Amino acid sequence: MSSETMPNWLAKRADLTPKRIAIENEEEKMTFKELNEQAKIMARQVASLDIEDEENIALLLKNDFPAIILIHALAYLDVTLVFLNTRLSPKELAFQVQDAGVKRLIYADNYEELVVKINLACQQEKVNLKFKLETISIKQLSTLKEMEIPLQTEINLAKIHSIIYTSGTTGTPKGVTLSYGNHFWSAVGSCLNLGLDNNDTWLLALPIFHVSGLSILMRSVIYGIRIVVHENFEAQKVNQSLLNHGVTLISVVSIQLQKMLDNLKQDSYPSSLRCVLLGGGFVPRSLLEESQKRKIPVFQTYGMTETASQIVTLSPEYLTSKLGSAGKPLFPAQLKIMSKDQEIINEVGEIVVKGPSVTKGYYHNEKATKEAFKEGWIYTGDLGYVDEEGFLYIVDRRSDLIISGGENIYPAEIETVLLTHPDVEEVGVTGMDDEKWGKVPIAFIKVKESKNRKNNQAIIDNKNNEDIKYFKDTKLLAHQLQHYCGERLAKYKVPTRIIFVESLPRNASNKLLRRKLLEYLN
Amino acid sequence: MSSETMPNWLAKRADLTPKRIAIENEEEKMTFKELNEQAKIMARQVASLDIEDEENIALLLKNDFPAIILIHALAYLDVTLVFLNTRLSPKELAFQVQDAGVKRLIYADNYEELVVKINLACQQEKVNLKFKLETISIKQLSTLKEMEIPLQTEINLAKIHSIIYTSGTTGTPKGVTLSYGNHFWSAVGSCLNLGLDNNDTWLLALPIFHVSGLSILMRSVIYGIRIVVHENFEAQKVNQSLLNHGVTLISVVSIQLQKMLDNLKQDSYPSSLRCVLLGGGFVPRSLLEESQKRKIPVFQTYGMTETASQIVTLSPEYLTSKLGSAGKPLFPAQLKIMSKDQEIINEVGEIVVKGPSVTKGYYHNEKATKEAFKEGWIYTGDLGYVDEEGFLYIVDRRSDLIISGGENIYPAEIETVLLTHPDVEEVGVTGMDDEKWGKVPIAFIKVKESKNRKNNQAIIDNKNNEDIKYFKDTKLLAHQLQHYCGERLAKYKVPTRIIFVESLPRNASNKLLRRKLLEYLN
Repeated sequence: MSSETMPNWLAKRADLTPKRIAIENEEEKMTFKELNEQAKIMARQVASLDIEDEENIALLLKNDFPAIILIHALAYLDVTLVFLNTRLSPKELAFQVQDAGVKRLIYADNYEELVVKINLACQQEKVNLKFKLETISIKQLSTLKEMEIPLQTEINLAKIHSIIYTSGTTGTPKGVTLSYGNHFWSAVGSCLNLGLDNNDTWLLALPIFHVSGLSILMRSVIYGIRIVVHENFEAQKVNQSLLNHGVTLISVVSIQLQKMLDNLKQDSYPSSLRCVLLGGGFVPRSLLEESQKRKIPVFQTYGMTETASQIVTLSPEYLTSKLGSAGKPLFPAQLKIMSKDQEIINEVGEIVVKGPSVTKGYYHNEKATKEAFKEGWIYTGDLGYVDEEGFLYIVDRRSDLIISGGENIYPAEIETVLLTHPDVEEVGVTGMDDEKWGKVPIAFIKVKESKNRKNNQAIIDNKNNEDIKYFKDTKLLAHQLQHYCGERLAKYKVPTRIIFVESLPRNASNKLLRRKLLEYLN
Repeated sequence: MSSETMPNWLAKRADLTPKRIAIENEEEKMTFKELNEQAKIMARQVASLDIEDEENIALLLKNDFPAIILIHALAYLDVTLVFLNTRLSPKELAFQVQDAGVKRLIYADNYEELVVKINLACQQEKVNLKFKLETISIKQLSTLKEMEIPLQTEINLAKIHSIIYTSGTTGTPKGVTLSYGNHFWSAVGSCLNLGLDNNDTWLLALPIFHVSGLSILMRSVIYGIRIVVHENFEAQKVNQSLLNHGVTLISVVSIQLQKMLDNLKQDSYPSSLRCVLLGGGFVPRSLLEESQKRKIPVFQTYGMTETASQIVTLSPEYLTSKLGSAGKPLFPAQLKIMSKDQEIINEVGEIVVKGPSVTKGYYHNEKATKEAFKEGWIYTGDLGYVDEEGFLYIVDRRSDLIISGGENIYPAEIETVLLTHPDVEEVGVTGMDDEKWGKVPIAFIKVKESKNRKNNQAIIDNKNNEDIKYFKDTKLLAHQLQHYCGERLAKYKVPTRIIFVESLPRNASNKLLRRKLLEYLN
């Protein structure tokens, strides 16, 4: 464990480049100096709450200035930040609050209702609750009198900065502990790959309670670069920012990039946009090809909460020749693909990584930590392969694997095929229990709006008989899609059922939640 | 102490960007892939020498490809590199070899004679020599059969990479231990200040046995950037490189920059040259002003062997407004000015620094380590002050301080004044014992060539009487210079003697050695 010390990052940044813009949104801008002053005030307000040393403080935040100030404020105190995903159910959040031994929750003002429900959920499960949960909104916090205490102006890289619960595609959520060192090394690794310019500006449209968003805040103060803050991801607004606000870097997931491209009137973005960092798992080939055709510098990347965001990213010189690859492990990191305790090449296996940006383990969960780590390497549970030159290709999340009649089926493979069909906008594939085969793949599909309109048109044309007409149409389309797959995939991979839906279940960072698909059938 | 691990840097770099040029000189170029292959071959050749684990290997190197390959080769073995300054006397080198417990020395082929002398000196002092010194040239080494051993493909940041003896303005030289972590953090700190571009190219004209040169090799593999290698510093050749070879960064000391400017026919360098990193202590204001006038992006910096090169550097936005300052401590570092155990501002005191790039101590010299460190801070012995905004101004090396009649005199202050005189090219000031005042300042001056020519002219014109004429001329000039100082400095600061010399004593990195000036009087 590293025990190097360095100055508080925001304090240092405000000292080095006080006048540079730190954060900016549609209404306001704030320099590093101003941000630091605000953070120090808020740190002293939090201190007035009579917090304990090394206390874990839970946060329910949205992407706005007060939240960013609060995150930096807490780095001035001897506390750990527990980031709560605002899209989870009160019961799920109550679990995390208890698991992390949290007794205080600070929330963005709009989450008052959710906070009430979390408290209720905590009380219902109170047998396990170690503390009474105290809650305060950022607005209330900002009215408190500052407490005159010495702030922590020096940090130890080994100290835990944050706990973030993994979305946990299966099983109980686990609190990933991320040290200051993990965040710093992640920023360094990214910088050594992407380079760094004083005029860089990173667009933040991913939630800051996810490591993908949080890591942008970290990079901002470490690099001394501006962030353009978006409260939510809205393709049109993001495009506006990219076209008009000198943004040079943005982090997105596939579906967001697709929406951006669909919304973009121009052929491309200004050449000042030098990196579209595309993460969140498997990426459809068609999206990469369209980006390439439109000269958009998409850098595919692979990372997870446990690696403090990116750990594998394609480097600039391989954007074209290695299209489809997530690249190689960043400078301080290492990667291998394992199958049955053997390191393999050119074959699909489990992605295993190592490096100073990787978590030292799960919060108070020795068992999960032991299961995930072997000799300093973390077994990610994700599937991929490396080619002869060491480039990683993401295949799937392991837990999504459908084993059917002894054959392995990767949902993403079927989804990729279906996405090339002209009527399909979004698709999610999962496995359904089957007496004969164990599991069989089924596909959930959102059809393109144009197609919907056609259906609606048909429905309107046949008012007396609309249900039947609609059913006939979708049944026909389902058959067409199965036929389409049958022409492109092994027979056992053809979805046994096609279910049409209005939207697919996604998490806060827009990652498809395949495990939730089956709930659509109930 | 950090115990983070990461891949061998060159191996990693060769994996990430194999085709980029790593090193280049007038004759040849080598990619990172080629450099890595060569380094691995040489590592196996060194291994055939039957070296021991954790052995300290001494190196007498010049700035060429074989030396760079060797340095990277040794990182593949479990050894520490002891860099010898090729300009030291055999006796001084014999001391270092013994102090570091070295039993093997690898040398560039042109140093054969020096090696014989070192061996002789070692034998003369053999009472202290723990081992018999075995020596081998790089040429001989490269004919050896490779030994098939597993190379060290992973490094621990806490491991000592190098030992470099400090030039030691006074007292016995001390071996500064620098870990892989020290070098890495130094590279990170520099990058967070200067930014990083894939097309960056660093010109290396400083000796690689000094930390100023060695750190460029480190940055090259960590950043993935090209180095243009110069065997020595020659102003004209350096200018040629800057004008024609796409160099974006160069490290120099004052006298080198002055020579470059004197030699430069054009007004400035191409705008692609984005940083002239100017280190090595006090910098004359006139040089900075000339650079600014000629639009040359000079970044003043402060560092020492103990800090693995730069630790304080001016940031891009303050080049103009803080001209003359060495800037602020790099992102991971901290600085304070101490006087009589008090931290002071706006007053001259000792420069004290802290950070992950700072050595953990002197090799096998607990006493010196204890003397230099206090609570994690290293007391540099150098003098400077910080202004209200925290910008550092270097005043002098403390050991050069002249105390005259109870008044402090900083040689650099007098030198700066003398350098502004039209007839002065170089100047060194030091203190001479004086019965009345304790010490008095005296100045050693190299006059401008044009002035010399005039003198020579005068001598030729008066053949019969040349000695007297010459003496008259210099005596006159000496009086003029004392008068010149008297007009600009307090009376006690005016040099009591002016001695004209052909060159000033400088170390391998061209730093003025004031302690050697007095030897000119013998």
